[in-house]
Amino acid sequence: MKTMKSIPVSAYKSSGFIGDYQELVRKEMIPYQYRVMKDEAGTEKSGVFSNFINAGKALRGEEHGDFYGMVFQDSDAGKWLEAAAYSLASVPDEQLEARADELIDLIAAAQDKDGYLDTRFTISDRDRRWENLLEAHELYCAGHLIEAACAYYEATGKRKLLDVMQRCAAHIHRHFIEEGRPGFPGHPEIELALMKLYRLTSDKRCLELAKHFIDTRGQDPDFYKKEKASRDWTVWGNDASNGDYQQSSRPVREQTEAVGHAVRAVYLYTGMADLASETEDKELFNACRRLWESIVNRKLYITGGIGSTVHGEAFSVDFDLPPDTAYSETCAAIGLMFFASRMLENDISGEYGDVMEQAFYNTVLAGIQLDGQRFFYVNPLEAVPGVSGVAPTHRHTLMKRPGWYACACCPPNAARLISSIGKYAYAESGDTVYCHLFAPGKVSFENGSSLHCETGYPYGFTVTYKITGCTTLAVRVPHWSRETSFFKNGEAITPEIRKGYAYIPVNDGDEIRLVIDGKPRFVYPSERIHSLSGKAALCMGPLVYCFEGADNGDIIAASYVDTGSEAKPAFPDPRLPKNALRLAVGGYVRAGQESLYSTAAPRLEPRELYAIPYCLWGNRAENAMRVWMDAARL
Amino acid sequence: MKTMKSIPVSAYKSSGFIGDYQELVRKEMIPYQYRVMKDEAGTEKSGVFSNFINAGKALRGEEHGDFYGMVFQDSDAGKWLEAAAYSLASVPDEQLEARADELIDLIAAAQDKDGYLDTRFTISDRDRRWENLLEAHELYCAGHLIEAACAYYEATGKRKLLDVMQRCAAHIHRHFIEEGRPGFPGHPEIELALMKLYRLTSDKRCLELAKHFIDTRGQDPDFYKKEKASRDWTVWGNDASNGDYQQSSRPVREQTEAVGHAVRAVYLYTGMADLASETEDKELFNACRRLWESIVNRKLYITGGIGSTVHGEAFSVDFDLPPDTAYSETCAAIGLMFFASRMLENDISGEYGDVMEQAFYNTVLAGIQLDGQRFFYVNPLEAVPGVSGVAPTHRHTLMKRPGWYACACCPPNAARLISSIGKYAYAESGDTVYCHLFAPGKVSFENGSSLHCETGYPYGFTVTYKITGCTTLAVRVPHWSRETSFFKNGEAITPEIRKGYAYIPVNDGDEIRLVIDGKPRFVYPSERIHSLSGKAALCMGPLVYCFEGADNGDIIAASYVDTGSEAKPAFPDPRLPKNALRLAVGGYVRAGQESLYSTAAPRLEPRELYAIPYCLWGNRAENAMRVWMDAARL
Repeated sequence: MKTMKSIPVSAYKSSGFIGDYQELVRKEMIPYQYRVMKDEAGTEKSGVFSNFINAGKALRGEEHGDFYGMVFQDSDAGKWLEAAAYSLASVPDEQLEARADELIDLIAAAQDKDGYLDTRFTISDRDRRWENLLEAHELYCAGHLIEAACAYYEATGKRKLLDVMQRCAAHIHRHFIEEGRPGFPGHPEIELALMKLYRLTSDKRCLELAKHFIDTRGQDPDFYKKEKASRDWTVWGNDASNGDYQQSSRPVREQTEAVGHAVRAVYLYTGMADLASETEDKELFNACRRLWESIVNRKLYITGGIGSTVHGEAFSVDFDLPPDTAYSETCAAIGLMFFASRMLENDISGEYGDVMEQAFYNTVLAGIQLDGQRFFYVNPLEAVPGVSGVAPTHRHTLMKRPGWYACACCPPNAARLISSIGKYAYAESGDTVYCHLFAPGKVSFENGSSLHCETGYPYGFTVTYKITGCTTLAVRVPHWSRETSFFKNGEAITPEIRKGYAYIPVNDGDEIRLVIDGKPRFVYPSERIHSLSGKAALCMGPLVYCFEGADNGDIIAASYVDTGSEAKPAFPDPRLPKNALRLAVGGYVRAGQESLYSTAAPRLEPRELYAIPYCLWGNRAENAMRVWMDAARL
Repeated sequence: MKTMKSIPVSAYKSSGFIGDYQELVRKEMIPYQYRVMKDEAGTEKSGVFSNFINAGKALRGEEHGDFYGMVFQDSDAGKWLEAAAYSLASVPDEQLEARADELIDLIAAAQDKDGYLDTRFTISDRDRRWENLLEAHELYCAGHLIEAACAYYEATGKRKLLDVMQRCAAHIHRHFIEEGRPGFPGHPEIELALMKLYRLTSDKRCLELAKHFIDTRGQDPDFYKKEKASRDWTVWGNDASNGDYQQSSRPVREQTEAVGHAVRAVYLYTGMADLASETEDKELFNACRRLWESIVNRKLYITGGIGSTVHGEAFSVDFDLPPDTAYSETCAAIGLMFFASRMLENDISGEYGDVMEQAFYNTVLAGIQLDGQRFFYVNPLEAVPGVSGVAPTHRHTLMKRPGWYACACCPPNAARLISSIGKYAYAESGDTVYCHLFAPGKVSFENGSSLHCETGYPYGFTVTYKITGCTTLAVRVPHWSRETSFFKNGEAITPEIRKGYAYIPVNDGDEIRLVIDGKPRFVYPSERIHSLSGKAALCMGPLVYCFEGADNGDIIAASYVDTGSEAKPAFPDPRLPKNALRLAVGGYVRAGQESLYSTAAPRLEPRELYAIPYCLWGNRAENAMRVWMDAARL
């Protein structure tokens, strides 16, 4: 079932749109987070470095400071190191590598003799290790550090962190398998990390441990209740009886609906899909497929966001996808990309790449301010001045990206995703090379071929591949492209299309060109999404567009788009990136009504309305924003 | 400023629509609640009777059981007695009066020697009396029992409960004024009750105490924080720093925005308006007027519901009036009627009666199942199968009225409102008699005149008044009536209209007829209500209509009303009351769309859509319901 293998990060050298974002990550986000972790950025205190330093001192019996921050603070180090590693794999940088090595030394010094590694329970409370799987995030932090170790080894060939995390994994294996202690992670993550470590090291214990955590989960739905009863402390007082929150109400193979905390869910499903492809476990893949369908058919925002409710940062019931109170966490969209990429390794089908780019170009990128210094954790599809961020039901839906703060899950997650996007964009299997995403730049494959992809995507819809070597080029054809043309060395061809991929045999020197339908289009929601009835969204290529006050004035909620009109490029806004395409579309604006309710039918006046890509909203002003507009013609 | 005086309940003998509801209260709700309070109804245990019994035993030093139920459990006795009194004032009933006397005897026996009366702190914790004004509801319960005492004395002439509650009021006066203990009610209610007691008894201490509580409120915004710090117990652990919740962030005369728990708010504003009219306090009236405008211009549902958010059962920010997650508590709509009726006593203006009937015919009546045995506390304007009552943000929006339960605030509140509706409908001032609501039946006034009102309202729009005696008839002309005709003894007249009232001098034997515009009409929300953009509601007379699955099948959220069409009467549904008018209106239904999002514009098929009065929804099935429909023509 293992259908293909992603390229290593170092095999892709980005340019164009992707290159710009990778540069933003490299030049702004990674150095900025480094300063944050050292408490030098002037943001809310992080304590990541000092925690590792203090844990090392504690182990050596030296005087030391207290643990600081969230119980999962160590994971920031893992995500940053992973992003740094991917960045180094693409662009060498001595200063960055020295900083990473410095942090790795501190991490290594914070590892206990038995392999245990977690600063929270090393600095103090060593007798509480592994007592609180529900809340304490020890396995979650270990997972992130394992991912970092794999990435850093692949990028630099340096083994120090890899050795540390192999010892840590061995310790965890000993605790849960050899010594037979019960339990599974309160926040899934280590499963997918162990699968990475297994693939890198071929250490069977990693595979065994990942499978153990996946298959133990939910076997005893009361595990956390018992665990809670057995200890006299908590982190946040989490409800141990809400099994759905951490996907432990039933064994994962019996799960049919995506429920609970959305990040936990997609991290778990990613590990499940990894295990399914690695072990050719059809039953497990079928469970993944059911959960995938639960998400994409019933619980997915048009922006690729998931987890619609702030209550538990969680999936809600089917078709409950409110635009203005959306939670739609940046990390959850990133996790959905992980899940999609692993589904692809089980099942080559265009729908996975479609969802990857839907999540990437919309929710993931919306998370990041253009300057790389402010971030949305929550990504609503509508912002309402005076209500968003203010009303009791809308406190979480901010209208302006906040700076880095204590629970800094999303920014480093975006950094590691963007800096490793090549792995999501390109893969290979024997003679065939796969292009899942239209990522401009140069790619080399293990099968000896390489390609150079040129495209203005997501604003340009011609994609040109210059091929070196012989191979079969398998290119995803986006489901939204009503017509896609293919050219080989300038001549139209009609390639074989299977499950959303065009398969094109190519020889050395060939040039393959795709012309995708990039005409703006209106998209209509299912009538089962009650909060969107009567609405339409404007999309172009993979981009969802939104209507913002900055372009239209204070009339967003009083506007109707004419879905019979054709959206056209509008003059650019110099405050947006130079390639960013604004669209103009016909519409109407109703005249303001003084009273709360009136029998006078609204007077509609024709008005051209302007839309920008959703991922760019909130960069110019704190203003009204809407993805789903009232449709004047249906 | 005291502009007029409401009639006593006994002066109105209802018939028609109002008569049917009063009969339901008398025959079903009052006897049912009596059984509930005695724990004989098979519902969740109430404990109201047993609490009074146990408190009496405790006072006599006898062995006794524990207090049972909510800290405000005694208030149920007050509301039930008040409803029973109003019912007795209209229709004598020996059994009911005997039951009321029995309860009054228990209440009297539960009163402490010093006048204190509250079973929670009499059965036990007597040393905690008055320690927790924030949560303990002692003043709230006293308020309800004072209202009951006034009503029962007026209905029966029996003084026993009145004497008890005068002693209780004197005790409270001694505690807060003579002994100078700080504080004011965590849940306003006693202010309006003391004003009733003052008007009945002319005891100046009642007026002084009401004014004291009103003017002390918010003078020290930190009062509850200090109170909480000074005791070592709580009821629910309420947040003492959230002053807005109980309207204590600033002195009431400085308040400009309706905030916090909606029932608390309108009970407070009612007491303020009472005090303003009684003492001709213009400053206080101006504060009331600002709060009134805050509600009706910016925070009012079309159904007359208030308090749009479940978080704190509270007012939200301006224009945040979501239909599907509405809280809109039945009690809050009742409280809004109280407030409106007292504003009328300061300022004769049609807008107050307009809002009273908006709240009454829609939200208040929607609270009651047709059989009088099940009740909505929460009144959403949209019900979505699979989401309402299920999604984390919609748990409070049930699709079926639940039976009586422990926190039984709404059912007895509706009972006392409906059984005393004459007080809201009719008033007099010197030579003039006022008809605020179109309430069919016979009314006698202190000025010697009387009238007989005949009307099929709210389904019929001819209102005929047969007058006995000389007077000026002042009739509210609803703001939604585009054309209203007046006839005196069959001849058209053009009466003077001032601030929404037609003033018609009449002589003995005159017959005045109004013909109100009862044509169904579409109503459009302000564009500032972001959650209602593109929507329209169908109304007829005072009734808001809704579209329900029972009439239309499973297509409510896929339907568009054609606001250019004319709604017409549809064949009646035998499952609804015989006069209840269903309406048929032109519209469209979009064909179902399989995928979550689609580029195919929805296919609209013409379809006649059926609407019923909102107050009758949820009586036939657990099904989809919408007040605000997508408008196909704007």
